[in-house]
Amino acid sequence: MSDAVTDAEPLAADAHDFFKTTLSLRPGFLIRRLHQIHLALFAEECAAFGVTPVQYSIMSVVLLQPRIDQARLGHEVGVDRATLTNVIGRLETKGLIRRSKKATDKRSNLVKLTARGEAVLEGMADAVQRAHARTIAPLPPEDQARFLDYLNRLVDAGNEYSRAPLRIA
Amino acid sequence: MSDAVTDAEPLAADAHDFFKTTLSLRPGFLIRRLHQIHLALFAEECAAFGVTPVQYSIMSVVLLQPRIDQARLGHEVGVDRATLTNVIGRLETKGLIRRSKKATDKRSNLVKLTARGEAVLEGMADAVQRAHARTIAPLPPEDQARFLDYLNRLVDAGNEYSRAPLRIA
Repeated sequence: MSDAVTDAEPLAADAHDFFKTTLSLRPGFLIRRLHQIHLALFAEECAAFGVTPVQYSIMSVVLLQPRIDQARLGHEVGVDRATLTNVIGRLETKGLIRRSKKATDKRSNLVKLTARGEAVLEGMADAVQRAHARTIAPLPPEDQARFLDYLNRLVDAGNEYSRAPLRIA
Repeated sequence: MSDAVTDAEPLAADAHDFFKTTLSLRPGFLIRRLHQIHLALFAEECAAFGVTPVQYSIMSVVLLQPRIDQARLGHEVGVDRATLTNVIGRLETKGLIRRSKKATDKRSNLVKLTARGEAVLEGMADAVQRAHARTIAPLPPEDQARFLDYLNRLVDAGNEYSRAPLRIA
């Protein structure tokens, strides 16, 4: 390592030290990075399907609960209303879901997968599983289980703080 | 629990089962949720400063490496070029950073904090620390350390997969 420091060409060692002493201790920074990595792995595994992780979560819930109310759907995947409207619109354009109005309340949208949506969801299941598995694959199996347990505890404990809390109970 | 199932009004128990058997086993889903929770905690703690987590990471790096090249800055915080241009533009509009051209290469932007940027960064340090701490506070201290260790190992191992890999070594 050199002692020379110039303004315009910072040393890589500085950056490395900064990462070690600062960024690597910030859970929020690391979580953002890991989320980016997961999005990339998901995109790589699922490129053929053109469905994002959030779209996939939404379709998973709709498969299980056909004609689910759109507002409720948002609560079950933790997606805020504006994002959900956007995502649902895209899935509808792709012919993967269909919206209809509730007979008793014209303001409510009910959401259902199309036959094509069901086929896509089924067809991409293995690829999605690989994307999730690869995200934590660098850890040994027993640490993977512990990492998932930590995530579940933190997500559960922090639920109310998020912009779109899960409402499933 | 009731056995009755209707199309339009799915039972909460279904959603709860789905979460337990499916969503809670998907690391990518949990990481997205925890990221949302951290963003909310950061927003709550740092509301007075109007600076987002990514903006804060960028300012932290610039403080340590005044006149850092903009492209390099992106590599050190793991932010892609389009996002970075956007964020840097906002920070400049707020008067927190200043850009200048490199004398030897007019295409390169050098980035530096303004005096106000330095003051904001220093002023929000405690609030940022609280946001990070609260994100993992539900775990006992020894589990917090292990969780951070897991995150670091996964972020390191998956770095090359992400859209904007960290380049710091």
